[in-house]
Order: sequence, then C-alpha cells, then structure tokens
Amino acid sequence: MRIDIITVVPDLLKSPFEASILKRAIEKGLVAVHLHNLRDYVSDNYKQIDDYQYGGGAGMVMMIEPIDKCISHLKSQRDYDEVIYMTPDGSTLNQGTANQLSLKKNIIILCGHYKGVDERVREHFITREISIGDYVLSGGELGAAVLCDAVIRLIPGVLGNETSALTDSFQDNLLAPPIYTRPAEYKGWKVPEILTTGNFPKIEAWREKKAYERTQERRPDLLKD
Amino acid sequence: MRIDIITVVPDLLKSPFEASILKRAIEKGLVAVHLHNLRDYVSDNYKQIDDYQYGGGAGMVMMIEPIDKCISHLKSQRDYDEVIYMTPDGSTLNQGTANQLSLKKNIIILCGHYKGVDERVREHFITREISIGDYVLSGGELGAAVLCDAVIRLIPGVLGNETSALTDSFQDNLLAPPIYTRPAEYKGWKVPEILTTGNFPKIEAWREKKAYERTQERRPDLLKD
Repeated sequence: MRIDIITVVPDLLKSPFEASILKRAIEKGLVAVHLHNLRDYVSDNYKQIDDYQYGGGAGMVMMIEPIDKCISHLKSQRDYDEVIYMTPDGSTLNQGTANQLSLKKNIIILCGHYKGVDERVREHFITREISIGDYVLSGGELGAAVLCDAVIRLIPGVLGNETSALTDSFQDNLLAPPIYTRPAEYKGWKVPEILTTGNFPKIEAWREKKAYERTQERRPDLLKD
Repeated sequence: MRIDIITVVPDLLKSPFEASILKRAIEKGLVAVHLHNLRDYVSDNYKQIDDYQYGGGAGMVMMIEPIDKCISHLKSQRDYDEVIYMTPDGSTLNQGTANQLSLKKNIIILCGHYKGVDERVREHFITREISIGDYVLSGGELGAAVLCDAVIRLIPGVLGNETSALTDSFQDNLLAPPIYTRPAEYKGWKVPEILTTGNFPKIEAWREKKAYERTQERRPDLLKD
C-alpha cells in the first residue's frame, strides 16, 4: 500500500511515522508513506498557499491551484483508489471504513489547515471526505496520522500476532473485555479468580459476558446495529 | 494549563508539539506539555512495563506498578483536575468535552499501548476515559495528541483571531458553510456570486443557510440535539 499525504506542515507528521508500529510497517515494506509539502507546488516566489476568504470572515483558506498541481502530479505517476480530504464535516471514521481502506493500493490524503480548503477543491478533486470525530483540530495532519494508524495496523503482517487486531474493540461491534497482568494482587486489588484457573472455555465465556456487559453499559448504540 | 502525558513511546509524540499552533501555544506560555516515559518508573533492570495477559490471549498488557509510581509522583507535586485514560471504549470526545477540558488547570493523560492497561489502573487511578472515535489505534499517543490539539486551540490567546474558533464546525451544532478564496474563477469553476458582492448581511444569511443545508445533508443527527 502507498499513501501520499499532502500538507502545509510536513514537520508535524514526522514522528508518528518514525516510531512504533507504523515505523516497523514502513521498514518491512508493507506500506510506503510519502509526505508532500504543498509549498513545493506554488509557482510564485512568496510560496503563497492560502488567502483571505471571499465574503470576509476570520481564518485563511487554502487555494485551489497548488492543490490541483500536487494532486495532478501524483496522478500522472500512478492510479489512485481514493483522494481523501480530512475535514470535520466529512463522514465519521469507524472501524468498518478502516477495514475497507486497508484493502486499497494507492491513496492520497489531503490535510486541511487554517480554515480549510477552497470548496472547489472538494467538488472537483476529492473522492471521499473523512472526519476522525466531532471536534475541531488545528489541521488535518493529526487526522491523517490517525487514519493511517487505524488503516496500516490492519494490513496483514503489520501486527506481530494477527489475532491481536481481531479481538480489539469494534471489530465485532463489542467493546473489549477487561484485561489483567501480573501481579495477581497489588495493594490488595486482585485479578478476577477465573482468569488464573487455566480453564480456557470458562475464561472465554467470562470474557464474552464482560465484553457484552461493558458494551451495554458504555455504548448501547453499538448493540443496535 | 499544564498537561502531563504518560507514554511508553514518547518519541511518537514529539513532532505534534513542535509544529504549528501547539508549538506557538507552548512558546507563548499558554500551555506546558510534559512527556513522561513510563520506563523511567520501573524498578527492575529490564525496564519491563508490560506482561502477558492473565487467562491467555494475544497482546501484551501494561502493568499497574510503573503507572501507579508515575501518577503518584506527579500527584505529589501538584493537584490534578483529571487523570484521563485514552481508550477506544472511553466516552467519545466531542467539541463540548474539549471546551470543558480547556478550562482545567492540570491534567494527566495516560496513553494505553499494546493491548491496553491492567483493568485495576482504570478502577483506581483514572477519573475519565476518553476515546477519539470508534476505531482502534496502535496506542493512545495519537489520541492524546488529538485531545491536546482540540483542547489547547480553545485556550484564549492560542488562535490569532479569537472569532476563528467560534465559527468552526460543531461550536453551534452546525457544520461550517463552504469557503472560497482567490481566484474568482479557476478552470471555469466560479466562486458563488453572492460572496463577491460585499453585501455582508446577505452573505451572512447565505452562510447560515448553507451551514444548515450541509448539516441536514451530512449530519442530520446534529440538528436533533
């Protein structure tokens, strides 16, 4: 899988791809992530990529031309499955979307910054708009990092143990059950006895019950789907 | 405001705080963000912070003792308003929670990694569990960065123009209207005429109408609240 991220602050995106699971996925050659600085696609000397909004109002707007140039340049080199724009009014990311995107080959992710991009970019170049949640961030960069993390960890071979992702929250519309590790007792707080019995069928049944209870308590909406 | 982030991969969190708005907020002294490496709170020589789960199953679990030590150390130095755990089964972050947290003084954010933390940590040390959305990430680090960004940009003085955050999506339960900037025409695609008239009351009315239409089309759920 290849991911091209278009941004005005490539520096912001460095460390998420240089640590932990994403770093290893890149090193293993399972995914290639390329950061593109939008300023490299500006023709004038001022490297201007944003301007005031038409009609007045606070906040700068990212101009269409540099974005068009960058996306066209990338598209001239290969086919892309999706050109995604990270925006709070996009469709909300969930595990299903992450699963779906993990099967794609080439993806462009455009990060909005400042007040966002000129609407014409969205109309003419974007195939999919994604929000990571109902809150506003300084830019789409962290959203892009989140999307990449959610997607890349699902690519076969990225996680050490493939069963690990399958027992995560949301994969079966249930939250994960509580987990415990050593010591069995800490400051008088004990691990549930069942987990230390070695009776695996009973442990499995306990976990399913707890996962269901937790979902019903915290996220009954997930059980309705 | 002071934010202490506890993590096993502090490197992952570096660049988000060294660029753009968060960097400027830190430089202006409006917020202080401290990263704590959980491995510094381990007594043995192996620097072990995780172990296998009781009852079997894939994925490592973060142990209670180093987390207890780190949180206790921080609490011995100052009072904290919240000890937040980033987890997909926490309550979903929204703009209201971000607004609320932007008024706090001292916050600890614990990032889960691997399969998560020992449940006893959640029972005894955590005051609030937050999820940034219905998807699973490699760890809580990106979630913590997202939470910090959403919260910090709301602190007065962080954004250059204070009206900017108020016209963002979600602040009034409406998505933002479309925005445009120069040129007025690009490849035959024109900016809506109303925006270039200079008739500000009419522009305002147009924006309100568009914001409402976009919300009704994309997120009718927001209008029900």
